[in-house]
Amino acid sequence: MLTVFGSTALDTIRTPSKILKDVLGGAATFAGISASFFVDTGLIAVVGTDFPKKYHSILQKYLDLSGLSVQKGKTFRYDGSYDDTLSTRTTNKTELNVLGSFSPVVPEKYRKSQFVYLANNDPDQNTELIKEFDKVKFSMCDTIEFWINSKRKSVIKMIGSVDAVVINDEEAKLLTKEHNLIKCAKKMMDWGAKYVIIKKGEHGSLLFFEDVIFPSVAFSLEDIVDPTGAGDSFAGAMIGYLASKNTTSLSEIKKSVVYGNVLGSFAVEKYGLAGLLSTNKAKIQSRIKKYQSMIDF
Amino acid sequence: MLTVFGSTALDTIRTPSKILKDVLGGAATFAGISASFFVDTGLIAVVGTDFPKKYHSILQKYLDLSGLSVQKGKTFRYDGSYDDTLSTRTTNKTELNVLGSFSPVVPEKYRKSQFVYLANNDPDQNTELIKEFDKVKFSMCDTIEFWINSKRKSVIKMIGSVDAVVINDEEAKLLTKEHNLIKCAKKMMDWGAKYVIIKKGEHGSLLFFEDVIFPSVAFSLEDIVDPTGAGDSFAGAMIGYLASKNTTSLSEIKKSVVYGNVLGSFAVEKYGLAGLLSTNKAKIQSRIKKYQSMIDF
Repeated sequence: MLTVFGSTALDTIRTPSKILKDVLGGAATFAGISASFFVDTGLIAVVGTDFPKKYHSILQKYLDLSGLSVQKGKTFRYDGSYDDTLSTRTTNKTELNVLGSFSPVVPEKYRKSQFVYLANNDPDQNTELIKEFDKVKFSMCDTIEFWINSKRKSVIKMIGSVDAVVINDEEAKLLTKEHNLIKCAKKMMDWGAKYVIIKKGEHGSLLFFEDVIFPSVAFSLEDIVDPTGAGDSFAGAMIGYLASKNTTSLSEIKKSVVYGNVLGSFAVEKYGLAGLLSTNKAKIQSRIKKYQSMIDF
Repeated sequence: MLTVFGSTALDTIRTPSKILKDVLGGAATFAGISASFFVDTGLIAVVGTDFPKKYHSILQKYLDLSGLSVQKGKTFRYDGSYDDTLSTRTTNKTELNVLGSFSPVVPEKYRKSQFVYLANNDPDQNTELIKEFDKVKFSMCDTIEFWINSKRKSVIKMIGSVDAVVINDEEAKLLTKEHNLIKCAKKMMDWGAKYVIIKKGEHGSLLFFEDVIFPSVAFSLEDIVDPTGAGDSFAGAMIGYLASKNTTSLSEIKKSVVYGNVLGSFAVEKYGLAGLLSTNKAKIQSRIKKYQSMIDF
């Protein structure tokens, strides 16, 4: 099985075409649901007592919730606005609420997870949590600007404690203080990551392993309405696919990146979680085929 | 054969690591030399009487110069500076000199060219010049911000008079007033281009034809020193490859885009023209093979 540790949130997302208020979001929500199309996925996250039942039902439909803690107080809330091009997001408000004092616990049944995804959490928490798994075959973490600016050393330490880092291009540059993405990746590999995956949004991604570079394009879409959760969906699909194959062969890791691109494309073509929630295994396979014929020459 | 119409310049290029003064450059120089690795290429361009003999010798080594006019006065000069990331170029000075009053003439032996590349010239000149070719099978044009801002209607008319448009992503957005590159391409196809190729620099390119989209990655390079001429080299390789195969089949056009990515990679890894001048057919084929194995999954 796969364990995903990260945030479950109530998001307010302001896009040029629509405003969503207090909708189900969070890195672990997107990553977990995306992964669940491939493998049984357990969630380690926290919500408050205000967390709507309908959202709990959605999580329950896709995920094992033994690791979901419900604590007195309000659920983590995020409020962000996209510009007209959907390429820049401004944070209006972040309310940590119950997430602020959350001490994640790994349920007994998750300890045997061979695949573990640590979303963009506090890097110290990620570094501690990964130790609680007994048989990790492949662990992957993400990080964001907030942690790079506030806890850079901890981020670097975290990178040394996992197998793979998945990170946005701008954050990779910020973290490593390099302009060229190959140089960024090399630095992260020097810090201990075996694999580095740099996400470039509409431009696809770059996978690095030893001296191998695997660049891949995004699935081309004409109508993108909400980029929220695309990167998390990408990461969830990657590790979900690998867990389903129970492998870390380079060839399968390359394929997992392609699945990442495809799940990211489902995420952005509808608002909030709607893109992920309206897909299924058959639609994913069909889009994988389209992806392959699209890039063939 | 292939005819390339465009600028031949003396460039001053200021990169973070090196300043080049009055070096051989210009869109037609890069495009023509890039194309010449695939097919006999004729140049239509103008230089002044100050044009150094050593640069004339370089052009002569790669290109047919029946269409190169030497006029009394100074050669077109361009002066630009790159920022530290090499992703933004600021124009410091543009001196049109003999280019300002140039009336291009198609030499008799070029009139039978079945492949014609019209670089980022005055769009009205491009639209007129293409009429002087008797047997055009495939014509392709580029354009830049300067013409989009000063002669947008003429640019649109030019697009309707050629088979293919090759254009940078930012310029495609500026021209079509769309954010999404698929929407940009559709608009240009509505204006009459059969094929649209949007160049995305380090992120590769997108080819559009009818309802086909062919995204391709750039050849990944760790050390990029000077992006000057990369887009021109891309375009030259594309049309040079197609001319060498004497075809416009979609499958070969896709391959031509891959050659474009590869020649662009040679251009950026050395300063000025040095990248193109130090490559050859064998190195190109070897990099094409590397490209294929790089993207394979």
